[in-house]
Amino acid sequence: MATVQMVEYDEASARVRKVYDEIMATRGIDFVPNVWKTFASHPPTLERVWRELQDVMAPGRLDALTKEMIAIAVSATNGCEYCVWSHTAAARKLGLDDEMLGELMAVAGMFNQTNKLAQGYQIEVDELYRNVAKGPAKA
Amino acid sequence: MATVQMVEYDEASARVRKVYDEIMATRGIDFVPNVWKTFASHPPTLERVWRELQDVMAPGRLDALTKEMIAIAVSATNGCEYCVWSHTAAARKLGLDDEMLGELMAVAGMFNQTNKLAQGYQIEVDELYRNVAKGPAKA
Amino acid sequence: MATVQMVEYDEASARVRKVYDEIMATRGIDFVPNVWKTFASHPPTLERVWRELQDVMAPGRLDALTKEMIAIAVSATNGCEYCVWSHTAAARKLGLDDEMLGELMAVAGMFNQTNKLAQGYQIEVDELYRNVAKGPAKA
Amino acid sequence: MATVQMVEYDEASARVRKVYDEIMATRGIDFVPNVWKTFASHPPTLERVWRELQDVMAPGRLDALTKEMIAIAVSATNGCEYCVWSHTAAARKLGLDDEMLGELMAVAGMFNQTNKLAQGYQIEVDELYRNVAKGPAKA
Amino acid sequence: MATVQMVEYDEASARVRKVYDEIMATRGIDFVPNVWKTFASHPPTLERVWRELQDVMAPGRLDALTKEMIAIAVSATNGCEYCVWSHTAAARKLGLDDEMLGELMAVAGMFNQTNKLAQGYQIEVDELYRNVAKGPAKA
Amino acid sequence: MATVQMVEYDEASARVRKVYDEIMATRGIDFVPNVWKTFASHPPTLERVWRELQDVMAPGRLDALTKEMIAIAVSATNGCEYCVWSHTAAARKLGLDDEMLGELMAVAGMFNQTNKLAQGYQIEVDELYRNVAKGPAKA
Repeated sequence: MATVQMVEYDEASARVRKVYDEIMATRGIDFVPNVWKTFASHPPTLERVWRELQDVMAPGRLDALTKEMIAIAVSATNGCEYCVWSHTAAARKLGLDDEMLGELMAVAGMFNQTNKLAQGYQIEVDELYRNVAKGPAKA
Repeated sequence: MATVQMVEYDEASARVRKVYDEIMATRGIDFVPNVWKTFASHPPTLERVWRELQDVMAPGRLDALTKEMIAIAVSATNGCEYCVWSHTAAARKLGLDDEMLGELMAVAGMFNQTNKLAQGYQIEVDELYRNVAKGPAKA
Repeated sequence: MATVQMVEYDEASARVRKVYDEIMATRGIDFVPNVWKTFASHPPTLERVWRELQDVMAPGRLDALTKEMIAIAVSATNGCEYCVWSHTAAARKLGLDDEMLGELMAVAGMFNQTNKLAQGYQIEVDELYRNVAKGPAKA
Repeated sequence: MATVQMVEYDEASARVRKVYDEIMATRGIDFVPNVWKTFASHPPTLERVWRELQDVMAPGRLDALTKEMIAIAVSATNGCEYCVWSHTAAARKLGLDDEMLGELMAVAGMFNQTNKLAQGYQIEVDELYRNVAKGPAKA
Repeated sequence: MATVQMVEYDEASARVRKVYDEIMATRGIDFVPNVWKTFASHPPTLERVWRELQDVMAPGRLDALTKEMIAIAVSATNGCEYCVWSHTAAARKLGLDDEMLGELMAVAGMFNQTNKLAQGYQIEVDELYRNVAKGPAKA
Repeated sequence: MATVQMVEYDEASARVRKVYDEIMATRGIDFVPNVWKTFASHPPTLERVWRELQDVMAPGRLDALTKEMIAIAVSATNGCEYCVWSHTAAARKLGLDDEMLGELMAVAGMFNQTNKLAQGYQIEVDELYRNVAKGPAKA
């Protein structure tokens, strides 16, 4: 269920099926998750978000589990129900256990608290932080 | 500057100085950052937040840099100026370079986008995600 | 259901029924939506919000559908379940189809992403934007 | 400064001056704060928000200082710079000292943390809370 | 239900039961709410959050009902379902009636509106507010 | 200024300059705004966000000014300073005047208020809205 009619595989256009097939193959699943069946109500969104997601989640300097943990922290901060469940499921497949999730949530919870304290007291940025944050000058 | 008078070291009570000294020793810095000089306007907050922070940031299953990256993702999502600068500075000291920060921000940005798409379309959670997210039954 | 007892029409005071009647007449519906039955637990809120809503949604420089689309974008950004459903329903009555909703959500999603990138990198405002944004000097 | 040209008293229309005069008289100040000079760029907004604010802040079951403290907690949670400063100033005039502000911020910070933990773990509401929250059935 | 297996009293370790017993005794209830059964999946979080909560909610300059009302305002602003229900239930036990809740929600709603107007117009802080907010210079 | 060293045109790589040239040509400006000089610290982000933005902002069922107004509403809701200024400047170039901006902000402000009232009272979605929102069944 969603605020649009989700597009089932059997009724999908060739354009949409192409993305559905790629999603199922890449993820190793035999069904199309609701998020993609919803985005398919607007094919350019289906194609764009799938493509961007592939780019952003591709192996790089951060490993896949770290990226999923960041996704959980962001989704918790935004209170997104669908996203918390789907990213937690994805992280479980990559090895996340209750202790790691506990530390992750503790850090996310703690900094939501200090974020609001800093904003509530309107604390001015220390000059040193500005200098250090930017990193060394480029050669 | 803040919405309260910050407490400078020289005018601080013994109770406050005790925390200040611990902060400077732990962090290896010779000044008290504005956030702590602000919290010192309410000593129980100074003591509590410092203590909780030590607990949450202590070495565990997630390493220090991963914890700071999660802090940056949360602070970006909340739009907290002080927090973004201070956690980026802390992460730099732990080795964060522009490429790692780029990947971190890309992931945080991407999932802020998909969070809002999921909430804006009110997508229903797939049953499979609920089952996988909870992890294996305890022995 | 809500965190207060909703006020049904049959048990409502004359003060509350007056607003209920106006809502049903204005909207062309024969039931009172949950939001108003909830606000009726505090009659001044019922009256105030209904009055303000009439003012804000009255015909002006922006047409009714544009106003409802802005309501959807705001509700998506806030993750408000009730609001997303009710404003999407209202926009459907004004002609919103899946393609328009798709573009609307794409724009809302995209700028939630760039908002967080701008806040996460703490990008400084370009001076030119400040000048252009304020518009021409008043005659 | 704002994203529109603020309307100074001397250049204001009679319609706008009427509200400005009322604001200065009610507040006991001899200048027009930036927020109202900004809203005056759209007179219906100036009139509506001022009227609504009078309604909401009028003496009732909650006293003026409690209402301002709630305003600070909301503004801290939203990270609104202007609002934090203006509501903290208003609360100071009503007697808020550093200790009260400290407790207020501690509570606001704490529940921002637990809010995100509850959302991050997607905790299901206890049935008992639903029953108690709604209060006793109306006679 | 939650994204982890909740820890029931009967299967809890001695470490977890100690906190459970304290929660039930302090609150005068004979069951463990879902939030604590969820945090128990990571015992350090269970212990830390319970300890921190006791500190923050202890009698001080603000009374218990005022603290719960601030919790409701924060939870409403964050859209946290669990938190709204649990804090509203707690406030009901302390005497909150529909009229007080109505005023509380009116204030929270109003300042969410003005927060966004101030941020949407990027209104500059009045110098006077900065001076007044900080309170009198310390002796 | 930003939390990274911005990349000036003169020191940019060929890869980055290619995007810079395209931005300046498309926008009809002779400088590179800070947002792009910041993203250039991570070239894949520069390329991806620019590409995605072109896709989302391309002419479609919603006109360019409507899209910029949605961007302003989202940026106001998120409290993003850079974004509010840049999108307001962009909208001005497309004809936005103070009255239109006033209506836009009034709608955005109003629904931020009602969003929080709906979340604060945890109002249940009316069944009718669910049915209407999804639109007609596909042929």
